[in-house]
Amino acid sequence: MPAMKAAILAVGSELLGTDRLDTNSLRLTALLDTYGVELCRKAVIGDSVEEIAAELRTLLSRVGLILVTGGLGPTADDVTREAAALALGRGLSFDAEVLAGIERRFQSLGIRMPQVNRRQAQVIDGAELIANARGTAPGMRLESGGANLFLFPGVPSELEGMLLSYLEPWLAERSSGIGRETAVLKVACLPESAVEERIAPAYDEFGREWITILAKPGEIRLQATAAGPEAERRARLAVMVERLHELAGDAVFTTRNEDTLESVVGGLLRAAGATLSAAESCTGGLLSERVTRVPGSSEYFLGAAVTYTNELKTALVGVPAELLAAHGAVSEPVARAMAEGVRRTLGSDYGAAITGVAGPGGGSEAKPVGTVHIAVAGPREGEVEHRKVRFPGDRERVRSQSAQLALEMLRRRLIAVADAA
Amino acid sequence: MPAMKAAILAVGSELLGTDRLDTNSLRLTALLDTYGVELCRKAVIGDSVEEIAAELRTLLSRVGLILVTGGLGPTADDVTREAAALALGRGLSFDAEVLAGIERRFQSLGIRMPQVNRRQAQVIDGAELIANARGTAPGMRLESGGANLFLFPGVPSELEGMLLSYLEPWLAERSSGIGRETAVLKVACLPESAVEERIAPAYDEFGREWITILAKPGEIRLQATAAGPEAERRARLAVMVERLHELAGDAVFTTRNEDTLESVVGGLLRAAGATLSAAESCTGGLLSERVTRVPGSSEYFLGAAVTYTNELKTALVGVPAELLAAHGAVSEPVARAMAEGVRRTLGSDYGAAITGVAGPGGGSEAKPVGTVHIAVAGPREGEVEHRKVRFPGDRERVRSQSAQLALEMLRRRLIAVADAA
Repeated sequence: MPAMKAAILAVGSELLGTDRLDTNSLRLTALLDTYGVELCRKAVIGDSVEEIAAELRTLLSRVGLILVTGGLGPTADDVTREAAALALGRGLSFDAEVLAGIERRFQSLGIRMPQVNRRQAQVIDGAELIANARGTAPGMRLESGGANLFLFPGVPSELEGMLLSYLEPWLAERSSGIGRETAVLKVACLPESAVEERIAPAYDEFGREWITILAKPGEIRLQATAAGPEAERRARLAVMVERLHELAGDAVFTTRNEDTLESVVGGLLRAAGATLSAAESCTGGLLSERVTRVPGSSEYFLGAAVTYTNELKTALVGVPAELLAAHGAVSEPVARAMAEGVRRTLGSDYGAAITGVAGPGGGSEAKPVGTVHIAVAGPREGEVEHRKVRFPGDRERVRSQSAQLALEMLRRRLIAVADAA
Repeated sequence: MPAMKAAILAVGSELLGTDRLDTNSLRLTALLDTYGVELCRKAVIGDSVEEIAAELRTLLSRVGLILVTGGLGPTADDVTREAAALALGRGLSFDAEVLAGIERRFQSLGIRMPQVNRRQAQVIDGAELIANARGTAPGMRLESGGANLFLFPGVPSELEGMLLSYLEPWLAERSSGIGRETAVLKVACLPESAVEERIAPAYDEFGREWITILAKPGEIRLQATAAGPEAERRARLAVMVERLHELAGDAVFTTRNEDTLESVVGGLLRAAGATLSAAESCTGGLLSERVTRVPGSSEYFLGAAVTYTNELKTALVGVPAELLAAHGAVSEPVARAMAEGVRRTLGSDYGAAITGVAGPGGGSEAKPVGTVHIAVAGPREGEVEHRKVRFPGDRERVRSQSAQLALEMLRRRLIAVADAA
């Protein structure tokens, strides 16, 4: 495939409003990058047959690859099928096999297929169908005058399934081997400026445009990019990742894109053959929810006590009422007692505890909103680590950063215990 | 101004990468909405004179108002000026007054103007200049064949300054007070197609293009839009919302955009003066986490037991071990016992329980992945409602839909109890 140019078109009036952006294009762009396809433009158009058809006609005359997302649903405002047929000057026919597949999908869920879903069985003449394992509407690939036009659903999970099963192999087959590739390092609980300072030497060594820092509260993504033939760019990427890891230090918790902090902690617990439980106050279950996002977490996670009231801190994890009376729920002694208590009561090797003021109410001069105490107990009786922090931001940010720091403390504790063994 | 159609074009190769989106368009869209201008399309194009010029030519023939952001900087890749001049077939001249302004700006910062900044003093013939109080490049307004083309810088703060000082008054002057407004209805736990079937009559009554359905697993947003002079569109919107509410029925949990299902449940609990606790297995804390996202939830939420293991189902919420042995953890009797048990143990008026197979592992023929039992106990001893469901999708979707349905069952129970009182 000679350097192919591509365009992305997202269809949906909701994407022209004031509160939603087309984010599917980012995923598509990454895939195009990998296979050396240059993205020239992307656009968003509302649910109008005429507008979509006009845009498709323009694109068909300008680029070799057109990726359309959205508008394949069952409802009347899903008009991508009609618009593409119009732009290509082709017919749209009812496909009995596609319909049977949609009906089977509904049957397997124990639901009768609503009549509207019949529309999703309409196929443009000459289309190659792309199976949709995660939804009802199939995707389509159409060729016209040397250009390839792909129609995908807009639901991210359905799109993702088709990218992996169809588009990626299709691009790989046509790729000249010259692509771009990005590697990622993830860093927990360090501010962006601190990470930036640490990795500054790498900017000079590799060129500033090849390294990107993306920050969200409590987590930084360092991205290294290399271009060229596969072997060459892989080698360069490996050097970049090693150097960035060296510079950023032990705050890097993974160099695998699919890892999350909770999956890394889970891996360490599994490797240690150890179990975990949690006692949560201000985070209300967020830490446990994150730990159990990981498939198979039942192997090491026993459970948690969400103790929103003081009474439950005593009843469920045995925090002495005197301690609560003397220091208040948001305090170091209570955090430590929660971690030790949940470890003992639930019978796990490690216990993690969070108590704090998430806001917006509940703050005081001594304990302002954002004040959080986190404790990790175990693996041996009486071993407890504690940190007091003051997080900036609103309720959601305070909660998410609290859960993040608890996981990071667990990660470091597990590594330290493993290293000592 | 008769109903004017608009397009937004963001210029910049960096906006075609894998990690940045054009967010300026959201701000522009809000402004267009307020003054009744319909946005038909938005696009992102890289720093190519030819591509930008081609797009501008297309847009000039299709819409009355074109808002371009980006590409007015001083460097060689800032080519919006050249591209617009090319598209309009006009010259680009050096403006001594603009240059003097740029030089003064640098002087006031104590810096000598870099030579590259001279480019920013180039003005397209016939342009009306738009002062930039927060940066060096002026904006421009150009008229051509009845259409208005605006060039703005891409830096959000500079853009914002020009929107307030120039574009907003310009739109206000041309607006007849005719704007657009959108209202929202949120629906829990109904499939998109079922909602569509229910509200179908409203498509005919109000016009299909004024009603949008946005679906995510377990929640549907119905958006009604009305245009016209303020009083008229408000009245129409009220009628539309009432009608959609009537058609969609009691599955509508709110008509306020800021409400979430958990905030609505929280409001009902507060109104009833009742308290809630939860026992979670496969959701791992997600239900509690959602309930406690709401500020002030400590007024009605006591806490939760995340009982990932069978032992903890017995130890923390008193599910009899015989019941677990006889029916398995994922069963109606256990869900009921968890809901009653957590209500009794934690001392709340209501208890909600979730136990299921979130997957990807753990499924069986009798209890495939996605099988979930949900129970709500209270407010009186012995009152328990139960539902068994089979959710499609991956682990995350099964978990999120389980928490959503538990909240919806609570909502309906609270309303039924209030109605009976």
